[in-house]
Amino acid sequence: MSAVKLEEFRERIRKELDTTVDFWLKHSHDPLHGGFFTCLGKDGKVYDELKYVWLQGRQVWMYSRLYRTMDRFRRPEILEAAKAGGAFLRRFARVPSSGSGQWKCAFCLTRDGKAVKIQRTIFSECFYILAMDELSRVTGDKDMQLEAEQMMEQLISWVRVDPSGLGRPQLPGDVPTNSMAVPMMLLCLVQQLTEGRGAEVVQKYTELASWCVQQILQHIQRGGTAILENVSGNGAELPGCQGRLQNPGHALEAGWFLLQLSAQQKDEALQKTAIDKFMELPYQYGWDKEHGGLFYFLDVDGHCPTQLEWNMKLWWPHCEALIAFLMAYSHTKKPELLHRFSEVFEYTFKHFPDAQEGEWFGYLTQEGKVALDFKGGPFKGFFHVPRCLYMCERILDDMLAKKD
Amino acid sequence: MSAVKLEEFRERIRKELDTTVDFWLKHSHDPLHGGFFTCLGKDGKVYDELKYVWLQGRQVWMYSRLYRTMDRFRRPEILEAAKAGGAFLRRFARVPSSGSGQWKCAFCLTRDGKAVKIQRTIFSECFYILAMDELSRVTGDKDMQLEAEQMMEQLISWVRVDPSGLGRPQLPGDVPTNSMAVPMMLLCLVQQLTEGRGAEVVQKYTELASWCVQQILQHIQRGGTAILENVSGNGAELPGCQGRLQNPGHALEAGWFLLQLSAQQKDEALQKTAIDKFMELPYQYGWDKEHGGLFYFLDVDGHCPTQLEWNMKLWWPHCEALIAFLMAYSHTKKPELLHRFSEVFEYTFKHFPDAQEGEWFGYLTQEGKVALDFKGGPFKGFFHVPRCLYMCERILDDMLAKKD
Repeated sequence: MSAVKLEEFRERIRKELDTTVDFWLKHSHDPLHGGFFTCLGKDGKVYDELKYVWLQGRQVWMYSRLYRTMDRFRRPEILEAAKAGGAFLRRFARVPSSGSGQWKCAFCLTRDGKAVKIQRTIFSECFYILAMDELSRVTGDKDMQLEAEQMMEQLISWVRVDPSGLGRPQLPGDVPTNSMAVPMMLLCLVQQLTEGRGAEVVQKYTELASWCVQQILQHIQRGGTAILENVSGNGAELPGCQGRLQNPGHALEAGWFLLQLSAQQKDEALQKTAIDKFMELPYQYGWDKEHGGLFYFLDVDGHCPTQLEWNMKLWWPHCEALIAFLMAYSHTKKPELLHRFSEVFEYTFKHFPDAQEGEWFGYLTQEGKVALDFKGGPFKGFFHVPRCLYMCERILDDMLAKKD
Repeated sequence: MSAVKLEEFRERIRKELDTTVDFWLKHSHDPLHGGFFTCLGKDGKVYDELKYVWLQGRQVWMYSRLYRTMDRFRRPEILEAAKAGGAFLRRFARVPSSGSGQWKCAFCLTRDGKAVKIQRTIFSECFYILAMDELSRVTGDKDMQLEAEQMMEQLISWVRVDPSGLGRPQLPGDVPTNSMAVPMMLLCLVQQLTEGRGAEVVQKYTELASWCVQQILQHIQRGGTAILENVSGNGAELPGCQGRLQNPGHALEAGWFLLQLSAQQKDEALQKTAIDKFMELPYQYGWDKEHGGLFYFLDVDGHCPTQLEWNMKLWWPHCEALIAFLMAYSHTKKPELLHRFSEVFEYTFKHFPDAQEGEWFGYLTQEGKVALDFKGGPFKGFFHVPRCLYMCERILDDMLAKKD
C-alpha cells in the first residue's frame, strides 16, 4: 500500500485524536474536587458523578503521556488536569484493606472522594500505578514514582505470593486460575516502569517480564489453534464455560504487548507467536463474518457464552485490533497485516465515531446499531480510544518518516 | 372475555408446564452427586457442571411445590429429585463466613459440592430457606423446617440489624440503600413460611411483613409516577444511575407479592397500590412500543442505562408480568387487566418457547431475536418459567371453577 494511503490513515487518526482530547477536556473535569467525571452522555453531559478509579488512573496516564510525548498536546490545561487527577487519586483512592494491614485502591468513589466499593482484584491498583509513574515522569515528582514502585511490589506479591490481601475468601472449589488480564496488565506495567529508564530498573523487572510472557503464552491452547481467556495455574485447560471462554479483544491486546517486547528483546520467535497466535487467531475466530466487527466473547466449542453481551461489538477490542495489526505491519511489512488493519479501520470508523458530537460510541448490537449511546461510563473513559489513536499515529509517523 | 378464552389460556399454559417439567426431569439431574445441572443447552445437554445455589434452591422449591399441590405432579421421580437436591444443598451449600462465626451459603459449587464463590448478599440464603421450607412440608422433616427458620432469623438480622456478616466492608461512600430485591425476597419468604400454618407462626412474622411492605412502597417515587429500583435507607431518591434505575420485571414481581398479601389482609388500598403502581406503571414505561416486550432496565429520566443488556428482552420479567396481570384480573375482574395479560401472553408465547426442543429461550435482542440460545444458565433455572405457568394455571383453575 502506498505512502499516500498511510498518510490518509494518519490524517483521519490525528483528527479523531484531537476531537477526542477536546471532548474530555471540555466535559470531564471536576473543578470542585479534582478528578474526572467519566459518565458522560452522547452530548458530553455528566449523567452520574461517581468516580471510577480505573478510569481516573487511565485518564491521568493518558493526559500525562500525551503531554510528555506529543508536541501538540504539550498544553498547560492538559498538564493541570493530569495533576489534579493525580492529586485526587493520591488523596482518596487508597483505603485500608480490612484485616490485612495492606492498602487497597477503591473501585469507585463519590464525587468528593469517599470510597463506595472495593473490588477483590488488582486492577484499580494497576491503573493507579500507571497514572503515578507516567505523571511523575512529567512532573519529576520522585515521591510519586516511589509510590508507584511500592504499590507495584504489593501487586506482585498478591499475584505471585499471597492473594489473601485482596480479600477473597479461599474456597476449596476456587482453583488457582491464570486469567489473561493479570499477566497482561503486569507486563503493561513492566513496560511502563522500565521505559527509558536505566539498566538497573530494567534488570529489576526482567524476571517478572519473562514470567508474564510465560503466563500469557499458557493461553495458547488446543494444539495452538485457540487463545483461551482462563487457564489453570499450571497452564492446562479448565473445565466448563470459564475454561472455554475466548475474548478476542484481550488476545489482540496481549498480542501487541508481546510484539512490543519482542522488538525490544529482538526475539523473532516471540514476534511470530505474537502475530500468528495473538492476532491472526483471534481475528479468525473473533470476526463476525455476517455483520463485521469483533465479538466480545466466544466459546471455543461453539456453545453460546453465558455473558449476555457476548455478541455485542464493543469499541475497545476494535481499538486493540487497530494497534495490533498496524504494529505488526510496521514490524514485518507484510501486506496482509496492513490489509487486516484496513478492514478493522473501515468497520471501526464507520460504526463507532459520533460525527455530530465527537468521541465514540462504545457499545453496538451485533448488527452494528448503537445500543448504548453514552460516550463514557463506568468502564469507558479517556483511555482505549485515545491510546489507540495515539499509538497508531506514532506508528504511522515512524513508518512515514522512514519512507521519506 | 369468555370462559372459552380462559380455557384456551389454561390449555396452552398447562401443556407448556408439562413440557417444561419434562425438560428438567430429563436433562438436569445429577445421578452421581445429587443436585441439579442448570447450564443446559438448546437441546438440554449440560454445557457446564457448576451448581448455582440460587438455582438449586429454586428447583427444590419448585419440584416440592408441584408435588405437594398439583395432582399430576405427585410423582415419585419428582419427590426423589427434590429430596436429592435438598440433601445436596444441606450437605454442601453452607460454608463458614470468614471471621464472623456465622454461616453463609455459597453462590456456586463444583459438581461434587466444593464452594467456588460466595456472594456478599442474602440471596443464596433466601433460596436455601425457600427450598428447605417447601421440601419439609412434603417430607414432614421437622429438623429441616427448623433449619429454614433459623436461617431466616440470621437473614433478618443481616438485613435489619447488622450486615457485617455478609462480608462487605463498610465504606463511607456506600450509603445504606433499600434495593427492591431485598424486601421483596423477605416478603416472599414470609409468605412461604406462614402459608397454611397456625396463628402463632403468622403472628411471629406479622411485623416483618409490614416492614417489607413499607420498604417496597418506598420505591414509589416522583410523586407516584415511577417505581425506582434503589432508594435510600429512609426512602428518598438516590443520586445518579443507581437512583434512577428502573427494573420493570422486579416492579411487576413485587406487584403480585403485594397483591397476594392485600387479599390475605383484605386491604383494598394495598390492592389498588399493587395494581396501579406496581403493575400499570412498569407496564407503561417498561413496554417497548416499537418491538413489544419488556425492557430489562430503564432510566427514569431517559438516560441510557449503563447495563449493557438494558434493552434486551428477558424471559423472567415476562413471567412476572403474566402472573401479575392475571392475578390482578382475578381479584378485580377489570377487563383491561385481562387485556394486559393477553398482550403479554401473546408476546411471550410467540417469542420465548422453543417449539422444537422444549422449554424457553431466556434472552432476546430488543427486536425479539434469540440472543443466547441455551435453556438454562447461571441465572436461568427451573424457576421463573414453571412458577409462572403454575401460578397462572392455578389462578385460571380458580376462576373457571367459579364460573362453572
